[in-house]
Amino acid sequence: MTGSGRFTERLSLADAWVWLDACPDAKDSEPVPLGQASGRVLSDALVFPTDRPDRDVALIDGYAVHAHSTLGASSYNPLLFTIVPKATAVAAGCASACHAGEALPWGADAVLPLEAGEVAGATLGVCDAVARGSGVGRTGQAARRGDVAIAAGRRLRAPQIALAASLGVKQLPVRRRPCVTLVLAGPKAPAIDALCPAITALIERDGGVAHGAPHHGDMARTLPGAASADLVLRIGRSGWGEDDDAVHAIAAAGGRIDHHGLALTPGGSAGLGWLGGAPVLLLPGDPLASLATYELLAGRLLRRLAGRAATFPGPVQRLTLSRKIASPVGVSEFVPVIRHGSNAEPLALAPADGLAGYARADGFVVVPAGLEGYAQAALVDVVMSGDSSGQEAL
Amino acid sequence: MTGSGRFTERLSLADAWVWLDACPDAKDSEPVPLGQASGRVLSDALVFPTDRPDRDVALIDGYAVHAHSTLGASSYNPLLFTIVPKATAVAAGCASACHAGEALPWGADAVLPLEAGEVAGATLGVCDAVARGSGVGRTGQAARRGDVAIAAGRRLRAPQIALAASLGVKQLPVRRRPCVTLVLAGPKAPAIDALCPAITALIERDGGVAHGAPHHGDMARTLPGAASADLVLRIGRSGWGEDDDAVHAIAAAGGRIDHHGLALTPGGSAGLGWLGGAPVLLLPGDPLASLATYELLAGRLLRRLAGRAATFPGPVQRLTLSRKIASPVGVSEFVPVIRHGSNAEPLALAPADGLAGYARADGFVVVPAGLEGYAQAALVDVVMSGDSSGQEAL
Repeated sequence: MTGSGRFTERLSLADAWVWLDACPDAKDSEPVPLGQASGRVLSDALVFPTDRPDRDVALIDGYAVHAHSTLGASSYNPLLFTIVPKATAVAAGCASACHAGEALPWGADAVLPLEAGEVAGATLGVCDAVARGSGVGRTGQAARRGDVAIAAGRRLRAPQIALAASLGVKQLPVRRRPCVTLVLAGPKAPAIDALCPAITALIERDGGVAHGAPHHGDMARTLPGAASADLVLRIGRSGWGEDDDAVHAIAAAGGRIDHHGLALTPGGSAGLGWLGGAPVLLLPGDPLASLATYELLAGRLLRRLAGRAATFPGPVQRLTLSRKIASPVGVSEFVPVIRHGSNAEPLALAPADGLAGYARADGFVVVPAGLEGYAQAALVDVVMSGDSSGQEAL
Repeated sequence: MTGSGRFTERLSLADAWVWLDACPDAKDSEPVPLGQASGRVLSDALVFPTDRPDRDVALIDGYAVHAHSTLGASSYNPLLFTIVPKATAVAAGCASACHAGEALPWGADAVLPLEAGEVAGATLGVCDAVARGSGVGRTGQAARRGDVAIAAGRRLRAPQIALAASLGVKQLPVRRRPCVTLVLAGPKAPAIDALCPAITALIERDGGVAHGAPHHGDMARTLPGAASADLVLRIGRSGWGEDDDAVHAIAAAGGRIDHHGLALTPGGSAGLGWLGGAPVLLLPGDPLASLATYELLAGRLLRRLAGRAATFPGPVQRLTLSRKIASPVGVSEFVPVIRHGSNAEPLALAPADGLAGYARADGFVVVPAGLEGYAQAALVDVVMSGDSSGQEAL
């Protein structure tokens, strides 16, 4: 299709998501050192190489003993044990000092707590009886050899990194970061260039990497970059005006646009297609529309390509609308809101300059195409832009 | 205090937070380029340097006209206007092509949509009447000069970065990242060294920067680092055993520990004090206890020093406990949980090796000191470890 028909039937947001979710996955993996693994997605399960612990260990500081020998001991009737050196076998009536985490010496089957022993030279007064296994971590108690330590697909955070380090692992296999080629409508468009840092920040937030410098104008010259890209974003000139060349530029570069025009506001001029084997998304040049279509379209695909959940990355909070939202039926609407406690206030945006308002927002609501909006006091799901659950005291 | 008394009264978690929240703030600022501003905290408000827009602008592609001249126009009765070049004054009966965003030429007070005009040579057939102000963004409509564009204290995300870029700003003043000096109990402790990448990841998550290589052993040698640090974390040997030297090491280095021992499990051997003008926290060497005390103590302070909210950074979800949690009264307990839909399952952790379990967790619950735990089916607030609201399909 040429996409030049302004009144062509527009793709619904739901159908756009079907299109995006059908784009093939790229499951390449690369190793990263543990120090750089935070936030990455593990590509292959890590298993325990041995039982954990791999031998019986002391759980507490104290004295490794043969439990049966302590029967009858009390502070009124201390039993006298012979202290033997560390790492030697512990026979009945003997004791060996041990620290938490150390292997239990051969022959011992319990650890007497420090405070239940009184040292006098080479003799230990045992003031309490201990049961077999008391104070002992048994072989394999935490995990068995071959058990999954970290599942494939897990997003790595401090607990997983600490566990991997405790297993002696120096690096982990993670999903490769998807490469995104940014193409700016041009050749000169300062307003569109100004979107680059913001779109790049979103790409990084969603696990991608903006590939090289953004390309201007001539799409054919961007093909070498696009060929190795996992996703191409073309920003600006996506509309139906005389200088809106997005669809033709993609076609001239050997690509195609499957859908041009979405039932979405802002962002109705967005498009979906293919270029050099990579999905290409046309994002409008208007800043609010560009950021909205990134959030609703590009981010969804990128997160999945990065091995993450496709769903919105920010926490979703159910808040009460402090003012109604009117929205035309048949069109999904992206509405920035400010949070006041448990209320969400839809922002009144200046026509054609929604960005100034959006920059004050705490998140956004998406009004589904099937609704005429939301009544005042309706409960709505707000996608928060922060990484806390709106607890940030801004 | 010496902190060597094992049975000294332990500080409650609530009182530890009071201590942490009383540490002085460090409000230094530094400039960062927009491309590196994502996630940083703006230190000084950004104001609009001019009205926005700074002149009347076209909101749509079309023809700038004098609205009064279009009265009576219709597709049955097109009025013929003279097309004048761009950027020249528009008199009555004249029209000038304009694009959305362009300044309205002098004399024009409305923009006729493209589809309401029919061009024939130098003449425009005007097929519709437009009201004054139609299609026009008025000076200052989005914001007035001096209005706050981005408030101080705002965590910068794509919308704020895009707005700053649209104002021609190249860099923004942000709160300096707090420097954290990591000191590892030593001189040799592979298990404690293994915690470094995980603790470093947490420091970076919370807006700090781990300062230089971690220091081992001799605290006196760490003082040059500590003197310039905003926070010192000393990991390991925080307990009351014979080789637990944390409190004495801090004292020997000229610092002091205000509180040693918290009513907290795991992490009861944590401590709070001062070293070289910086707050110093003793974290236990056991991996689970170390991560738990980081989350409950160090992270809280660090986030505030970074200009963020002190509250937990992960989204908090109210979930239903699938199994009861028993917890001693008088002690706060850190309990890792796995989420299953709207349920939270407390993890059964191996004694003295909670890390293997914690690495499978989706978040944690903190049982307040005043409770004996939570009954099965109780609603609990779970601090999720992911950065989504638990929507990650792991």
